[in-house]
Amino acid sequence: MTAQRTHARTQVGIVGAGPAGLMLSHLLSLAGIESVVIETRTREDIEATIRAGILEQGTVDVMVSTGVGNRLLDTGSRHDGIEIRFGGESHRVDLASSAGRSVHLYPQHEVLRDLIAARLAADGDIRFSTSEVSLHGVTGTEPVIHFTDADGRPAELHCDLIAGCDGAQGTAKWSIPDSRRTDHFRAYPHGWFGILAEAPPSSKELIYAHSARGFALISSRTPAVQRMYFQCDPTEDADSWSDNQIWDELQSRVAGSGSPLNEGTIFQRGVIPMRSYVCDPMQHGRLFLAGDAAHTVPPTGAKGLNLAISDAVVLAQALERFFGTGHADLLEGYGRTAAQRVWRAQHFSWWMTSMLHLAPDTGDFDRHRQLAELDQITGSAAGRALLAEGYTGHPIAHTNPRSVVSEALRLTAGRRP
Amino acid sequence: MTAQRTHARTQVGIVGAGPAGLMLSHLLSLAGIESVVIETRTREDIEATIRAGILEQGTVDVMVSTGVGNRLLDTGSRHDGIEIRFGGESHRVDLASSAGRSVHLYPQHEVLRDLIAARLAADGDIRFSTSEVSLHGVTGTEPVIHFTDADGRPAELHCDLIAGCDGAQGTAKWSIPDSRRTDHFRAYPHGWFGILAEAPPSSKELIYAHSARGFALISSRTPAVQRMYFQCDPTEDADSWSDNQIWDELQSRVAGSGSPLNEGTIFQRGVIPMRSYVCDPMQHGRLFLAGDAAHTVPPTGAKGLNLAISDAVVLAQALERFFGTGHADLLEGYGRTAAQRVWRAQHFSWWMTSMLHLAPDTGDFDRHRQLAELDQITGSAAGRALLAEGYTGHPIAHTNPRSVVSEALRLTAGRRP
Repeated sequence: MTAQRTHARTQVGIVGAGPAGLMLSHLLSLAGIESVVIETRTREDIEATIRAGILEQGTVDVMVSTGVGNRLLDTGSRHDGIEIRFGGESHRVDLASSAGRSVHLYPQHEVLRDLIAARLAADGDIRFSTSEVSLHGVTGTEPVIHFTDADGRPAELHCDLIAGCDGAQGTAKWSIPDSRRTDHFRAYPHGWFGILAEAPPSSKELIYAHSARGFALISSRTPAVQRMYFQCDPTEDADSWSDNQIWDELQSRVAGSGSPLNEGTIFQRGVIPMRSYVCDPMQHGRLFLAGDAAHTVPPTGAKGLNLAISDAVVLAQALERFFGTGHADLLEGYGRTAAQRVWRAQHFSWWMTSMLHLAPDTGDFDRHRQLAELDQITGSAAGRALLAEGYTGHPIAHTNPRSVVSEALRLTAGRRP
Repeated sequence: MTAQRTHARTQVGIVGAGPAGLMLSHLLSLAGIESVVIETRTREDIEATIRAGILEQGTVDVMVSTGVGNRLLDTGSRHDGIEIRFGGESHRVDLASSAGRSVHLYPQHEVLRDLIAARLAADGDIRFSTSEVSLHGVTGTEPVIHFTDADGRPAELHCDLIAGCDGAQGTAKWSIPDSRRTDHFRAYPHGWFGILAEAPPSSKELIYAHSARGFALISSRTPAVQRMYFQCDPTEDADSWSDNQIWDELQSRVAGSGSPLNEGTIFQRGVIPMRSYVCDPMQHGRLFLAGDAAHTVPPTGAKGLNLAISDAVVLAQALERFFGTGHADLLEGYGRTAAQRVWRAQHFSWWMTSMLHLAPDTGDFDRHRQLAELDQITGSAAGRALLAEGYTGHPIAHTNPRSVVSEALRLTAGRRP
């Protein structure tokens, strides 16, 4: 006996309750546009998966201006600079004075908690714990999402449009036929060995270190928990390292000026791969991809979360115009607008990676060249400004100045945190 | 019967009458320090070998301030900007407003003519057409240059110090033992196919073009002669191309906005390899390397001639201090000071090359990334300033403010051409 298939209708069906999907749903709701979010994980799962978060100024602005930035302002920390360490010496890049913008440290899962809370408080419709999600008829005028709900019942969600926000492993993008889709892919010959440790911060600001042994990143999660990474082989087995070996490796990579790192109990470890991916185009018929579903960046630039938010902002503006006026021009231009920012972020991530990491084929010549580049970038106002512009993020396009999100951003611009 | 070996003595023996050697001899002469230049080519040969010349502001300043800049000011042309062309569109980088400096176009062989004329007018000692040049005793206090003079007589030149300025193919650097010398080398997977053509200029400023077919550079030699290059395989046979094929290739690489290139009779052609080399250290005992003898850069950054001049300026300041006060501190620091500028130029050349050329392994991802980088560099004031700083050249170190060259540069700074 097959269970009866339930039917529902909404304006925008959103696949995936990650940063892109939840922010899109939130922004649409402010604009009076209905959406339903279909997610395979549980709410607890989403809120408990600890992820780093360096929020660009534009991401902070969007959250604050649309009413989901209170906890971020209370518990996140604004960073006005970063430290670049090479040749054993420290060089600070003042983000605020170099680019007129800053970043906030606020973990990604906290962003998700804020967005979920806001959506549920506004009676938003998020279907957690679904399964067997599939998209149908995306080139027609009423695409449909098939899924099995949390109670095991098959369901259909009929939509005007679908937003594919199901992350790097998601399947939404496969609804774009192979013949119409180019997968731009690049694997980096590095991994990041990451740890979480119970220790006091070693530095007030993030340290990006270039050393003869490779890259390291020293970051802080809370006053009692630190996040650190060092470049490793992408196939490295994290469990084969003793705590002492890990600390020795980290210490040696930041050695030089300044105190040694504060050590402590390592309670989480793992190796992150470094990949770049861009799905071209980011839209097909009535399917629009956003966030990791459409692109992946290596962690060096900390751009993943920020691109998800900016995609959502660009898409929300286009949808508001579409539902408000019937004009599809911004929707048709969505992919091109979003992709420009995506490629800039890809370049920035590649640049930070290539400048700070030693690749297997990085010879003596290239190591000296890297040091000359670091010397030039940190030693010149123009170099610091270029790095700070990329790090704090390029402004998000206001394609629809009359949209709710665009207006909110303008109102907030004058009183930035 | 062996001819009698002639003996002579000088303060600084200079091997090679290229830009580094001649400029060094010129600067030393202004400071009252004796030198003899030993060169294997004839004067006619040196003055007739046509080479490009994009002179950094610092190079222009040195020439003008030391009295060899009149023809440069009369017949060279100041360029306050360059054009970067990509995606079929033109983007101007205003050097003057972005970096406060400009460049001059003035061919290298004209620089050499000016320096030779100045040296001979001052009774300078340049031995052309020598052969069998070899260095001896460079780690002692009286190194010697053995050579055969223009009349076939063996000769010895006893010196206080030797400057190795004998170019990329020179042998001076081999006097640094293998065990003490690191050869930093990098081959690029490109060549430049260069032509000289009888045609009017196609553009007032240089065009650096990124295209789906690879890089091209459009430059002007005189109102009637144009110099153009396009990226090719380093093993390309220039003679296998018809004139039509060459023009088609060049036209397609700059196609888009603007008029097509003005075509004309191609009267010279050839393929230039692209290599980077740095000899580390640049000194050994009483031997000091300068210019191409110590380092090679790919042509993309137009840095070769400029590095030769800045090496000469740094070395002249150190020698003036040594002969004037007996202090060897600046001489001992010469290599380190010069190398910092050399590595910045290596990085700049690598950057311009990697941003504008398609390598055999440049996939779709990297081509999109390049376009995003070009978009960001030309679209941001910081990006334009960083490029302009590198292109117009970093200031040459004033290590000895009381030296003749340093004083001359200061006097000129206020009234720049």
